[in-house]
Amino acid sequence: MAPASNLTRHRGNVSRPEREALLGQRGAVLWLTGLSGSGKSTIAFALERRLIDQGRAAYVLDGDNVRFGLNSDLGFSPADRNENIRRVGEAAALFADAGILAIAGFISPYGAHRDRARDRARGRFVEIYLDVPVSVCEERDPKGLYRKARAGEITNFTGVSAPYEAPDSPELRLDTAALTVDQCVDRIIDYLTAEGYLSAPAAEEAAE
Amino acid sequence: MAPASNLTRHRGNVSRPEREALLGQRGAVLWLTGLSGSGKSTIAFALERRLIDQGRAAYVLDGDNVRFGLNSDLGFSPADRNENIRRVGEAAALFADAGILAIAGFISPYGAHRDRARDRARGRFVEIYLDVPVSVCEERDPKGLYRKARAGEITNFTGVSAPYEAPDSPELRLDTAALTVDQCVDRIIDYLTAEGYLSAPAAEEAAE
Repeated sequence: MAPASNLTRHRGNVSRPEREALLGQRGAVLWLTGLSGSGKSTIAFALERRLIDQGRAAYVLDGDNVRFGLNSDLGFSPADRNENIRRVGEAAALFADAGILAIAGFISPYGAHRDRARDRARGRFVEIYLDVPVSVCEERDPKGLYRKARAGEITNFTGVSAPYEAPDSPELRLDTAALTVDQCVDRIIDYLTAEGYLSAPAAEEAAE
Repeated sequence: MAPASNLTRHRGNVSRPEREALLGQRGAVLWLTGLSGSGKSTIAFALERRLIDQGRAAYVLDGDNVRFGLNSDLGFSPADRNENIRRVGEAAALFADAGILAIAGFISPYGAHRDRARDRARGRFVEIYLDVPVSVCEERDPKGLYRKARAGEITNFTGVSAPYEAPDSPELRLDTAALTVDQCVDRIIDYLTAEGYLSAPAAEEAAE
């Protein structure tokens, strides 16, 4: 290896269209937002399953694989929740840049935080709002969190004692009280297909 | 969607062997460590190019796409450098879990920090030590950093005023003063091939 002259960075870097031509899809951040119990994790994993079964490269970022790893230093203060969502948005954007369909499932109650994640994804962001009444979520209460929030054992609980800012114009709005999991996944796949996420870019674009 | 009963997480989760069967490779963290000017970025991008040209899913995590995004809140204090490497290790482990060949190029001078990244990658870690004398790196000085370090304009500069803990038993040791970039990439590809990273898992493993 010659000295400095050969150390120029970025020469011959792989472009996003090249990656996408290879994978036969376009990388994107599929961002599921909604109350606790609205079905984010269920739909995230069902969507990943469907995409993988179709031969797509997809990966779920959720509380389980992020809170114990990348964000293991963060607690649940407002500042830490903000940083949690910020890092998830950044990590998801890296996956999207790599051509992967990154599925992020987080309550993410604040519009500004979601918009920051959208901005980082540089136009490859699909906001999927799981629009279901808090009463339905509370009835499901899969983790018993609403019960604890009502008992005052959890403070600042979204939908009970902290706000949820509903998206103004999400790419998709799914009522999980009316639709089955499969129907929700169908809607998402239909959207991704219609928007070209499940096709490789045209050859001339990949050759740019 | 029925209430709680359908909200069990992880049912039907995609397994790592399934992802790898789909991609025809095994996810891993390829961790390049070495002094500033040792060739980490050059080799990282040349390796990514070669892998992509072979139809592999690979992605470089380096200072450029991490420092301005995921780690944009971090400076250069010892604590922040530690956190920088921690997060990179976690993000790379997520990529590896997704079946991707994640290429991380960071000075990462401390053995304990590299070992933490290795631990997070759960057995899928290839430590590639760019073993080149500081005198060669200083002669290259592609960013003019050694000059600034010698002039005292940069403190705690690895190899000049801060230690570099050489890996004891890296998977690969490459002398970039003696090998061309292509030869370095050849060695890495040979290693990945020999270790099975560039093959899909056996069908029975994928079906587990």
